[in-house]
Amino acid sequence: MVVVDVHTHVYPPTFVELLRSRSSVPYIRTFPETGDVARMVILPGEDDPNTPSTARGRPVGPEYWDIAHKIAFMDTHKIDVSVISLANPWLDFLPSDEAGDAAQKINDDVNDQCSKYPGRLFAFGTLPLSAPIDVIVKEIERLSKMKYMRGIIMGTSGLGQGLDDLKLDPIYAALEKHSSLIFLHPHYGLPQSVYGPRTNEYGHVLPLAMGFPLETTIAVTRMLLSGVWDRFQNLNVLIAHSGGTLPFLAGRIESCISHDAHMKKEGKLEGRRPIWDIFKKNIYLDAVIYSEVGLKAAVEASGADRLLFGTDHPFFPPLEEEATQWESVSTNYSAIKTAFAQDDKAAKDVLGGNAVRILRLHE
Amino acid sequence: MVVVDVHTHVYPPTFVELLRSRSSVPYIRTFPETGDVARMVILPGEDDPNTPSTARGRPVGPEYWDIAHKIAFMDTHKIDVSVISLANPWLDFLPSDEAGDAAQKINDDVNDQCSKYPGRLFAFGTLPLSAPIDVIVKEIERLSKMKYMRGIIMGTSGLGQGLDDLKLDPIYAALEKHSSLIFLHPHYGLPQSVYGPRTNEYGHVLPLAMGFPLETTIAVTRMLLSGVWDRFQNLNVLIAHSGGTLPFLAGRIESCISHDAHMKKEGKLEGRRPIWDIFKKNIYLDAVIYSEVGLKAAVEASGADRLLFGTDHPFFPPLEEEATQWESVSTNYSAIKTAFAQDDKAAKDVLGGNAVRILRLHE
Repeated sequence: MVVVDVHTHVYPPTFVELLRSRSSVPYIRTFPETGDVARMVILPGEDDPNTPSTARGRPVGPEYWDIAHKIAFMDTHKIDVSVISLANPWLDFLPSDEAGDAAQKINDDVNDQCSKYPGRLFAFGTLPLSAPIDVIVKEIERLSKMKYMRGIIMGTSGLGQGLDDLKLDPIYAALEKHSSLIFLHPHYGLPQSVYGPRTNEYGHVLPLAMGFPLETTIAVTRMLLSGVWDRFQNLNVLIAHSGGTLPFLAGRIESCISHDAHMKKEGKLEGRRPIWDIFKKNIYLDAVIYSEVGLKAAVEASGADRLLFGTDHPFFPPLEEEATQWESVSTNYSAIKTAFAQDDKAAKDVLGGNAVRILRLHE
Repeated sequence: MVVVDVHTHVYPPTFVELLRSRSSVPYIRTFPETGDVARMVILPGEDDPNTPSTARGRPVGPEYWDIAHKIAFMDTHKIDVSVISLANPWLDFLPSDEAGDAAQKINDDVNDQCSKYPGRLFAFGTLPLSAPIDVIVKEIERLSKMKYMRGIIMGTSGLGQGLDDLKLDPIYAALEKHSSLIFLHPHYGLPQSVYGPRTNEYGHVLPLAMGFPLETTIAVTRMLLSGVWDRFQNLNVLIAHSGGTLPFLAGRIESCISHDAHMKKEGKLEGRRPIWDIFKKNIYLDAVIYSEVGLKAAVEASGADRLLFGTDHPFFPPLEEEATQWESVSTNYSAIKTAFAQDDKAAKDVLGGNAVRILRLHE
């Protein structure tokens, strides 16, 4: 049995340097009160000047950039292979003329990291989404030939207007042409106002527990509504956090579409692919959902052959310094074990077999 | 077997008059282009002046206010009993000094409607949430003695600051004291910005399919984080639309809480009730989720003894005028039938038995 982690992040040295050189979100810095411990502030709203600096963002260390730490984490948690990806916010924030070069450097950097541990590391590349379209398409082509690259990671912003933006079509076409999977990952969350006046009392819970999956759900629904999968029927997307909340809401989404008088009047209800069809043909889900209830719903929606184990490392470390096993990892392991207590084959597929097949990790 | 619909709305005549007298959201009016067909505009953002008036809000007729239409709908769909409730936005928008009287009139109005069809209609009352606390508490006490009232319906705004507002404690205390269930229902959705620039092309799909359940999920998570169910361990809440997305996200919510350094530092992790415990003791879910996938997740989270059939009538009517059976209803019926194909007792409980027991409909 092979265990593959498809949701595991790195901030390669080139990217860390970039963050250290900045003073607005996203950035890495030390504050006088935090001593030697650098803090990474990447989420919109995490930089509230009313928040004490010791509560802003998160403390970061070499587990964020040193690939040896990734390997040690994998060994501790019996993970054979990791498909690493740059974490949010990727290069979304870069000026147009800097993004292309930065993406090349970072993708080369990540590919190099993989080459140091042959067979144990593969990666999703990063696109320079603020660059001109032809630069983005060229990077997709370049990535498709790189030894350890197995697709690309992307946020929900696209070129700045979301993933239902028709200007993304050349990007989707290039990804489809190269059978390059999109690992779709949240970053922007929801506007702070939805969390109410007490949100800071709850630490990072609301933006992390709510903002991320809800952002993802809206982004994919917008893709669906704009007909992305009608135009690109072979475009494959691996959705982070078991699809946000998509498996649970899919029925409501279908019902709202088929009951919408405006969509009907515009002729948009005819010939469209229902979400359940897209789940079975274009969508893969990671198994980062921390419960048997969620995991089973993900399986029901997409199938046990389309669900892939992940950890979200280096995020959600244990709060107890002495802990070696990460509870965030064991919760996801347990959910798989319990949900597939009667189906050993399915458990093995979700833990690694699916990833090997779908991402061609034997090549 | 008894079929009970716990999610079915009325706008009683007193409330319709109120909406007709208004010219800003929420309101009911005819536009020159829409002739005799009145349109009801209740959702934030539905009043965009760039939207043609024929696409603003929704056409409304007697099915919204004439209780005979409700009974006819029930007969068509083999529903024995309905627990009717005023739909959003309730009285949230009223000035403080008008809300108390308006609530009394509307609750009397609804109770009267129920009395015309004994045994077939019960109701959730409406609270004057913009009124002073003692006025709200008095209405809770009055409602608890009204013959057909079986709890109250409430939005996510509370007194204006959300349901994690500590100022709501006297309300929660009064509801708990009178064993008065809260039917928690969305209205405010999410800020328009999250839907992106193309949202109007998709009719009402994004605010209805996304805004409503995501608003609900955030609202309940805020209640949980503020410790409402630690302080009021017998407070019962029936959550609309199968909990928004709560069953699916519960694992992530628990994981984010237990990994939050700030919550730990503040001592908020000790002694708190986990969400899974609250699901089994304080939360009921309706079965308005339009898919077997969603329904099963709801059952896994709360139990087949805590799930209650609903229709959301008069919303989501068929687009075809000649249709008599509503697809939005048959989809929810089918989901129950399929999910409980092997468990006839559970199907009957969800369709009506649970509602009779939980809402004391035999009394």
